[in-house]
Amino acid sequence: MNFLEKLLAASRGNDSLLCIGLDPDPARMPVDDVLTFNSAIIDSTHDLVCAYKPNLAFYEALGIEGMEALSKTVEYIPDGIPVIGDAKRGDIGNTARAYARALYEAYGFDAVTLSPYLGHDSITPFLEYRDKGVFVLCRTSNPGSADFQALKVRGVAGDGEEERPLYIEVALRCREWNRSKNIGLVVGATYPRELAEIRGLCPEVPILVPGIGAQGGDLEAVVRYGGDARGERLLVVSARQVLYASPGRDYADAARREALRLRDQINRYRAAR
Amino acid sequence: MNFLEKLLAASRGNDSLLCIGLDPDPARMPVDDVLTFNSAIIDSTHDLVCAYKPNLAFYEALGIEGMEALSKTVEYIPDGIPVIGDAKRGDIGNTARAYARALYEAYGFDAVTLSPYLGHDSITPFLEYRDKGVFVLCRTSNPGSADFQALKVRGVAGDGEEERPLYIEVALRCREWNRSKNIGLVVGATYPRELAEIRGLCPEVPILVPGIGAQGGDLEAVVRYGGDARGERLLVVSARQVLYASPGRDYADAARREALRLRDQINRYRAAR
Repeated sequence: MNFLEKLLAASRGNDSLLCIGLDPDPARMPVDDVLTFNSAIIDSTHDLVCAYKPNLAFYEALGIEGMEALSKTVEYIPDGIPVIGDAKRGDIGNTARAYARALYEAYGFDAVTLSPYLGHDSITPFLEYRDKGVFVLCRTSNPGSADFQALKVRGVAGDGEEERPLYIEVALRCREWNRSKNIGLVVGATYPRELAEIRGLCPEVPILVPGIGAQGGDLEAVVRYGGDARGERLLVVSARQVLYASPGRDYADAARREALRLRDQINRYRAAR
Repeated sequence: MNFLEKLLAASRGNDSLLCIGLDPDPARMPVDDVLTFNSAIIDSTHDLVCAYKPNLAFYEALGIEGMEALSKTVEYIPDGIPVIGDAKRGDIGNTARAYARALYEAYGFDAVTLSPYLGHDSITPFLEYRDKGVFVLCRTSNPGSADFQALKVRGVAGDGEEERPLYIEVALRCREWNRSKNIGLVVGATYPRELAEIRGLCPEVPILVPGIGAQGGDLEAVVRYGGDARGERLLVVSARQVLYASPGRDYADAARREALRLRDQINRYRAAR
């Protein structure tokens, strides 16, 4: 089963487009141990999600112990649920191969996020793992994403030279590189117009959408514009809003209530499309 | 002492622009243990370099043990020699702060490499460590660097809108963001014309130049075009050529001979400028 099949199976099985970001923050966690925290969150939400997405930064910030907790978290997640390593890596061929080994083999992620700045040879070594998935950063959710991603470029992808924003050029190049059907894109919930545009150009790729909740993205617009023709291949990320729904000992129950609420809200917007 | 002062002190003390990339490859290492290998290389070359640069990919590919070896390698490097964590990270504010903590505090790097794709708020959390350094990817050494970096953009940095390659826009924005004088750039040795252009626009920033040796960059052109007015603030990276100078038990001695040869060759080109 390749990544896309695994994603669709989990998404359909749990009737969910919700992807929980497992981003442990010691300042907000009601327990000390990251693995204890993550395990409780996973126990209480695994029937409500289409995927989990740990961001490696939060584990690396905790040193070696953090990386051990990450490794055990990936193992702990039930087999049917895909795990996306939010790593945003991007390096040259030889080194990209080492990162692919690290993320796919040492940690066992089903998919990873990658930065496009270094071009095709930074992505190809990941695509060669044909059963795994890649999500390339396209239009990110943060304010600074405008600095370079929104610049008008003289693009060369597709039907020939044309002026377009850099993030559209990235989407079009990814579409060209997607021979093994294992590329997806990352588009921030804070840019729904751009999300609609990218979905129009790439009707079949999975799109990972962070930025609802704390960052202020509009959930209804994300569901309306981000889904494919069947309202699928969309992963709506929520992290802090679910993980820290309660600061107390009831955090896992509170996380379940919030995840359920989000999943059902997404499904209502989906039904209304 | 801030990063730039530490770099210049090491570079002058060792009369060297050579930065050794500590990229352990189990398939080529003549010993099994990464820390044993790195320590021997460091013992035999620390008086010949201006900096060391471990690329995190090679350690992550070895799992938790690799990360432990990385951490101990950073500790092992003598205090006066700056250590650059080649991480090419780039993430949004909250997460960038976690990466900065990981790289500067947990691992103790003096500087790191970052990708510019996410814009200023992915870089600012690193710049706030004013004694540390940042090298932003500008024009990378690999063939795929042309895919996006060489696209003509309608740039907005500097004196107003103008068409220029994306990597020049990145260099100009970094110049604007460099209030604390802790930004440098990464430019591949395989693009000497672009290196000259970037040095002309940014006369004061340190430039980290990978791509000589296996990747075929021209050392003489790098030294001629990459140095500042005094022929400094240039870090010429060599990794495999030094680390694997001999496949046998004499690897540390062979590494020293190769590092000495490279340092002196660089200095001859520098004297001839």
